[in-house]
Amino acid sequence: MTHINPYALGLDKNAANFVALSPLSFIERAAHVYPERTALVYGPLRRNWAQTYARCRRLAGALAARGIGPGDTVAVMLPNTPAMFEAHFGVPMSGAVLNTLNTRLDASAIAFMLEHGEAKVVLTDREFSGVMAQALSALGSRRPLVIEVEDDLAPPGQRLGEIGYEDFLAEGDPDYAWQLPADEWDAIALNYTSGTTGNPKGVVTHHRGAYLNAASNAIAWNLPDGSVYLWTLPMFHCNGWCFPWVMALSAGTSVCLRRIDPVQIYALVREHHVTHMCGAPIVYSMMLNTPAELREGIGRTIRGLVAGAAPPAAVIEGCEAAGIELTHVYGLTEVYGPSAICAKQPGWDSLPIVERARLNSRQGVPYPLQQAVTVLDPQTLQPVPADGETIGEIMFRGNAVMKGYLKNPGATAEAFAGGWFHTGDLGVLHPDGYVKITDRSKDVIISGGENISSIEVEDALHHHPAVLSAAVVALPDAKWGEVPCAFVELKAGSAATEAELIDFCRPLLARFKLPKRIVFGELPKTSTGKIQKFVLRERVRSASAIE
Amino acid sequence: MTHINPYALGLDKNAANFVALSPLSFIERAAHVYPERTALVYGPLRRNWAQTYARCRRLAGALAARGIGPGDTVAVMLPNTPAMFEAHFGVPMSGAVLNTLNTRLDASAIAFMLEHGEAKVVLTDREFSGVMAQALSALGSRRPLVIEVEDDLAPPGQRLGEIGYEDFLAEGDPDYAWQLPADEWDAIALNYTSGTTGNPKGVVTHHRGAYLNAASNAIAWNLPDGSVYLWTLPMFHCNGWCFPWVMALSAGTSVCLRRIDPVQIYALVREHHVTHMCGAPIVYSMMLNTPAELREGIGRTIRGLVAGAAPPAAVIEGCEAAGIELTHVYGLTEVYGPSAICAKQPGWDSLPIVERARLNSRQGVPYPLQQAVTVLDPQTLQPVPADGETIGEIMFRGNAVMKGYLKNPGATAEAFAGGWFHTGDLGVLHPDGYVKITDRSKDVIISGGENISSIEVEDALHHHPAVLSAAVVALPDAKWGEVPCAFVELKAGSAATEAELIDFCRPLLARFKLPKRIVFGELPKTSTGKIQKFVLRERVRSASAIE
Repeated sequence: MTHINPYALGLDKNAANFVALSPLSFIERAAHVYPERTALVYGPLRRNWAQTYARCRRLAGALAARGIGPGDTVAVMLPNTPAMFEAHFGVPMSGAVLNTLNTRLDASAIAFMLEHGEAKVVLTDREFSGVMAQALSALGSRRPLVIEVEDDLAPPGQRLGEIGYEDFLAEGDPDYAWQLPADEWDAIALNYTSGTTGNPKGVVTHHRGAYLNAASNAIAWNLPDGSVYLWTLPMFHCNGWCFPWVMALSAGTSVCLRRIDPVQIYALVREHHVTHMCGAPIVYSMMLNTPAELREGIGRTIRGLVAGAAPPAAVIEGCEAAGIELTHVYGLTEVYGPSAICAKQPGWDSLPIVERARLNSRQGVPYPLQQAVTVLDPQTLQPVPADGETIGEIMFRGNAVMKGYLKNPGATAEAFAGGWFHTGDLGVLHPDGYVKITDRSKDVIISGGENISSIEVEDALHHHPAVLSAAVVALPDAKWGEVPCAFVELKAGSAATEAELIDFCRPLLARFKLPKRIVFGELPKTSTGKIQKFVLRERVRSASAIE
Repeated sequence: MTHINPYALGLDKNAANFVALSPLSFIERAAHVYPERTALVYGPLRRNWAQTYARCRRLAGALAARGIGPGDTVAVMLPNTPAMFEAHFGVPMSGAVLNTLNTRLDASAIAFMLEHGEAKVVLTDREFSGVMAQALSALGSRRPLVIEVEDDLAPPGQRLGEIGYEDFLAEGDPDYAWQLPADEWDAIALNYTSGTTGNPKGVVTHHRGAYLNAASNAIAWNLPDGSVYLWTLPMFHCNGWCFPWVMALSAGTSVCLRRIDPVQIYALVREHHVTHMCGAPIVYSMMLNTPAELREGIGRTIRGLVAGAAPPAAVIEGCEAAGIELTHVYGLTEVYGPSAICAKQPGWDSLPIVERARLNSRQGVPYPLQQAVTVLDPQTLQPVPADGETIGEIMFRGNAVMKGYLKNPGATAEAFAGGWFHTGDLGVLHPDGYVKITDRSKDVIISGGENISSIEVEDALHHHPAVLSAAVVALPDAKWGEVPCAFVELKAGSAATEAELIDFCRPLLARFKLPKRIVFGELPKTSTGKIQKFVLRERVRSASAIE
């Protein structure tokens, strides 16, 4: 007797019960439900959700009228201004893919991205006109349409655009009938990762993942409807960890700012009653190191997501004292920004700060709507034992994982080998199931056949009261192969010597893990506050060659 | 020159970046991240998420071992007990579809559902053994495997099952390697709607919708991680509005109870620090009408979702005074329970109670992850003007909309005509975009050619201090065709006459809308507190026939 599945027939998808998942739906709802709530604050500018939605529709309509649509790339070279926020909706509403350029890059990198991404249109801000003019001239006849985003708050600079942003918007219809993507798997954004070697790779993300990771951010953070979010994290970095879309979902207010300036940050927090922000530990360090008188009048708690590096104990403790409640998250551009969270367990709050810092420094567990983050043996893809010691590679699986790298099937296949996304970060799995980075893959120091985690050495140095930041890389060594070399930035007004810091580490580290050399000075950082270890490695290499 | 879409090639789905959306992922994560947090409380029983997950895997494994899998139906006739909660995970983990039976139904309805749904297995509780024995005997040789869920807290009753639930679980492996559905569109649940005429229709929902509406509940309610949820809403009603899955997503605690008893409710609230609950207005009314001494010691605010009927002003006001913060939501079984929300706007809180009640009584706007709820002309499917007056049919569109009705292509096609789900509820669209029910389709009273909204008449009666509940139906009338007839239940210890209530309504209603007859007595209600108007209509018909 054949078994007939009663659920297999006549229960198909149709327009009533199946809609492509896209974060563009969030702004439509925000404008519908909370049309008059403030969406954007920037200098003296205030715009509500109805106005913001109308401007995004104008942008989409104007792009479409110029023939831009699915499969086309629109690049933007913009700081955290309202135009940058609008691009996150207006560009994909036209069907095109948004490519946010890292504004700290040089002309050759920008030219590479514009060429490789085949940008048809570029929105640019005069602060970056020097670099952008060079990049555009390198493109020659393949120059895209350049739209100049005028901004009274920008520093002086050359005007590059064929048309101004406001004039361009005026070409579009505020009621433009944009469409959801034909398929939720369609590309929404292209973000180039700043690899340490070779050309940048173009991470292509999709509407489904952006929708889900935006919702996941809201759930992970228990983000209340109508929050006030301060844009300390660059939107060019993994689309601001999906937060333009999160703010539309929660119909909150985005407070925009062009640069990280603690004085301005505190003024904005006071004026707009900021409730939420994101950033690397360095952002919070800067806020904590602001003179007390500038921090006065911040009555309420600010909630902060921190990623890019584990928050040091001093930052956790300082934030607690300053009324900033930190949550440590972890991710990469390939997983839409934060995609793992160091979920706080009952009881952690009452532990001593050192223990709290140790627990909160871990990369944690999957985001609520991410499927898995774990540590696997990169060869066998078998899970490592959850012993906190066995090192493997951190891998993700789930719907908030990129489509792949643009026009780079080799890198894509490598990243997805065995059905997991390989982060390249090495880590361990703790007995409670939390993932902990032991080292970015390239950061392992192999000394006398023993692996040394540079992070472990950095952690030890961070315990010294004079140390603001520390980065440890491998120094070639005739006897041991490699030894740890530490680059240390001291706190303003603090002092320490090489011998003092090495002595300080003795009780904290096995002998072979002690830094053999300490170099003092400011550390090179990316725009998002990540220390650029490849620069330090380069310095070490040059120095070794001379010696 | 052909335009080549650079995003069209080499960026396909694979095991790393595409996973079927299913709420089953939530319990895996809850058990992984919060294994020791309490998942279930029931009488003296406490079970954490690790234990609960292991039991659900046992259930799935035991079902699979008996040959149950995709396309099979597993029915349950259970109150809000831990087994009922576990069935929401264990059954779909086996690939089967969960059919929760309404425990208030009679044997012929149950027999119809078991037969129509082709249930292969039934889990049952001895409280319902009378009805279930009759239903099973009607099935004859098509009797499914009956599993007896033993419960010390159940009233006495006959044992029906071939095997006990605990023995059945013992057949399964606590580490059973369950699989996500092959397709997120696969069925997860079958819920029969209690139609007023004809056979019940079997609403088939899918994993994708259950996942999204669970997340939508969490976002709409800004539900904190680790909430304590009291099960005042039957889980057999649209899968408890998706809340078994929501509680897994937020790794919260479910406090189970067999029946709505205000004394027990307050005891549970006190003991377990309940933070959240759901129910029809009647549930909150009952809680408010509990003597003050039983309500003592409830220090914190409880947040309640209310649906099934708009919360009357007295309930909103009473809840405020009692520390229960209500949010009005709206939905149907076909849209996974709540799928629209009367989102509160800034400023509402400071309005007078009558105005606040008027605003909050509306069905509102789409849930955060639902695409649309609106009012359309049922013929043309064009939106009605947002004037608060033009009546149309309330319709939904989005991913939290059923697959269709089981083995009922005609009803499915009708429900989805024109690419919208037709609720059958009539309503208007207010200028602020909020949907407001004016009448369930069958409740319109047509008097002298004028439509009368029975809800409007009921609202007027609810303003009278002696009225607990009022329901208005059409009374056949020789002159006018139909006139409103009101059935009124008075508050305990209150009194009112027919003439008094009609006089009371005069300033509130147009003359032709005044109730022409008022019948006093207890109102017939469904298990979820909805007034059964079809019973009242039947009474009116019988009475008219005699007169």
